[in-house]
Amino acid sequence: MYVFSDRINRLKPNVIRESLKLMGDPSNISLAGGNPSKESFEYDTIQEIASELLAGKPGVLLQYGITEGWDPLREAYIKHILEPKGMKAGLDNILITTGGSQGLFAALSVFLNEGDTVLIEAPTYLGTLMMLNYLGINCVSVEMDEDGMITDDLEEKIKQHNPKALYTIPTFQNPTGYTLSLERRKKVAELAGQYGFIVIEDDPYCDLRYKGEPLPTIKSFDESGNVVMLNSMSKIIAPGIRVGVAFAEAEIISKLTVAKQCIDLHTPTLSQAICAEYLNRGLLPGHLERTTPMYRAQLDTMLDAFAKYFPAGIEHSKPEGGLFVWVKLPGDMDINEIFKKAVEAHVLFVQGAPFFYDESLAGSTLRLNFSASPPDQIDLGMQRLGKVITEAFEKKGS
Amino acid sequence: MYVFSDRINRLKPNVIRESLKLMGDPSNISLAGGNPSKESFEYDTIQEIASELLAGKPGVLLQYGITEGWDPLREAYIKHILEPKGMKAGLDNILITTGGSQGLFAALSVFLNEGDTVLIEAPTYLGTLMMLNYLGINCVSVEMDEDGMITDDLEEKIKQHNPKALYTIPTFQNPTGYTLSLERRKKVAELAGQYGFIVIEDDPYCDLRYKGEPLPTIKSFDESGNVVMLNSMSKIIAPGIRVGVAFAEAEIISKLTVAKQCIDLHTPTLSQAICAEYLNRGLLPGHLERTTPMYRAQLDTMLDAFAKYFPAGIEHSKPEGGLFVWVKLPGDMDINEIFKKAVEAHVLFVQGAPFFYDESLAGSTLRLNFSASPPDQIDLGMQRLGKVITEAFEKKGS
Repeated sequence: MYVFSDRINRLKPNVIRESLKLMGDPSNISLAGGNPSKESFEYDTIQEIASELLAGKPGVLLQYGITEGWDPLREAYIKHILEPKGMKAGLDNILITTGGSQGLFAALSVFLNEGDTVLIEAPTYLGTLMMLNYLGINCVSVEMDEDGMITDDLEEKIKQHNPKALYTIPTFQNPTGYTLSLERRKKVAELAGQYGFIVIEDDPYCDLRYKGEPLPTIKSFDESGNVVMLNSMSKIIAPGIRVGVAFAEAEIISKLTVAKQCIDLHTPTLSQAICAEYLNRGLLPGHLERTTPMYRAQLDTMLDAFAKYFPAGIEHSKPEGGLFVWVKLPGDMDINEIFKKAVEAHVLFVQGAPFFYDESLAGSTLRLNFSASPPDQIDLGMQRLGKVITEAFEKKGS
Repeated sequence: MYVFSDRINRLKPNVIRESLKLMGDPSNISLAGGNPSKESFEYDTIQEIASELLAGKPGVLLQYGITEGWDPLREAYIKHILEPKGMKAGLDNILITTGGSQGLFAALSVFLNEGDTVLIEAPTYLGTLMMLNYLGINCVSVEMDEDGMITDDLEEKIKQHNPKALYTIPTFQNPTGYTLSLERRKKVAELAGQYGFIVIEDDPYCDLRYKGEPLPTIKSFDESGNVVMLNSMSKIIAPGIRVGVAFAEAEIISKLTVAKQCIDLHTPTLSQAICAEYLNRGLLPGHLERTTPMYRAQLDTMLDAFAKYFPAGIEHSKPEGGLFVWVKLPGDMDINEIFKKAVEAHVLFVQGAPFFYDESLAGSTLRLNFSASPPDQIDLGMQRLGKVITEAFEKKGS
């Protein structure tokens, strides 16, 4: 009946949102979502902070604020997140966004015209694919291995397609859990300067490291000023408060700010003030110390379950952090059939296809989440899934 | 150095944001902004609500939420805002947005392609002009008088331009303070059905009525399903929490929801829960009872000041609510010169031109805000401004 815009007509329904309905059923074990554990939230602290902030009756918390963001949060982000990682920034390099994904939408909007080409990882975050589709962007997929994007393939694609931008999730990537190696990080920054394209470095999981040593961001090697780094408080404080950060050259930040003015004027001030206070009280290191062993146990339970419950030879990623493990089944296994059987067995996952711009590259892949369930639930879920996959595997062999 | 997208290159700097810097100087009296009074905020109540909500340790407040919005808020909005106004809606007619302006951005994005034509009031909200520009929309201005948009001119323009949509602020319009009459409201709804275009009814000021009788919304007369009504909690609870609402047919809401998924996933849950609780405790009527006499005194002080301090024959609007009064000076008066002199005299206002798509229609107009200052400050500001305008008026005559 209604005539909608081309941009909205291009979009397909989000497959994860569909399975959200199944996730609501408590008899199902969900390895499908991407939520941080609710056990990770610092309820008492957040309540105390919110209450104290509002008790001061500061009109500024309830009044309109500036689009750039609440100054104390921008300062706290620089001091408590960037500087400990050896990065330097001024206030005019920082924009607060309503969640990390808004920074992404703004960055894509500010640089890309309809029909422009963007390089992406194959697979990649499906929210990004949705935005790229919405904006009418031509996507070219770069191949990945356990060390993230393969930079030889990247350079090849740059030469072939002269992209306007590259989108990458370098650390504990969604959906694969892969992490871009140090050498490749340097190479990406170098290529951005050499070929003159924008790198959108989406790094919401970088602080969720349960093993191994932290790696510097691509932005750390940015000599051309072409890297826009996006960060989020969703996985390290709480997603419901919707606070993200964009870090880039001042000229880029000023354009992102204008885009954000169109999108929502500014991020809720109370959310921003809670984050600022949380960071300024020095609570983040303690929070990570508390949550890291919890998430490590959940990750290890999932990784151990492959040997216990899955047929030999099933490939999967072995991330050192983040939220996700990526599974590759033999290509002749029917993932849709396995999904159906898994739902019947009360275990949920997300199929690989929606994470690919070119779905024909998906093969028989799936994404598993280990952050949202305790170890016993993960073990039980993996047992159920392992049974479904073993049966399909045996049927195929027979 | 950077190559930005066409949409961002089309935008001009926002003139109000520029004068925000001058507003920071306490020696200046600002009649320039559009903020609700900080005296209007219910600090204690909001603190109490936030604290109680968080004390219950509800994981849902801090976890990812659904894009459509927090169910209790959607229900509370229907019960406490729509139903008392005689409007009926189901949950699937309601989308919660991050501030009212995000609903606007989403609605424009969902219906309009680059190059489409939209009818707007002349003058209109400059944030909307910015968004229309960002989206590359062709705007056609409809004439206004004290009773809002002139519907004869509207129908003429519809026939001439076959618009995809009409954007209107029917009640206490920004910047004029004009209110669309009952007959014209019916006519707009009728024309939308007859000619098949979308009406975006932006109504953030409707509850700020200090005199006269409330009018039904255009949406109340919507038989075609073509009216999208946008509302905001910014002026009746607080803008800093950034909560708005879109109310439309379910098919439209589902598209707006997909657009919002691209823009920011969801509005912060704590902000939504505070609003829901505020409405469910039945606090809105008492709040309006308390703030109405305060705003009425501010409005009357401003209206009285024209007779006291301004030359005879200066035209201005006489709104019964809202935040703004619109002033038309004789066309041969130099508004830029008056703005400069006013800044020297430590009183700030916004020039009319940026509120017009076609700035040549602006003449010598200006917008005054009466919501953000107490009566004594308004009187003093108007005295200063009256002196500047009287001097310019006399100089012109001499």
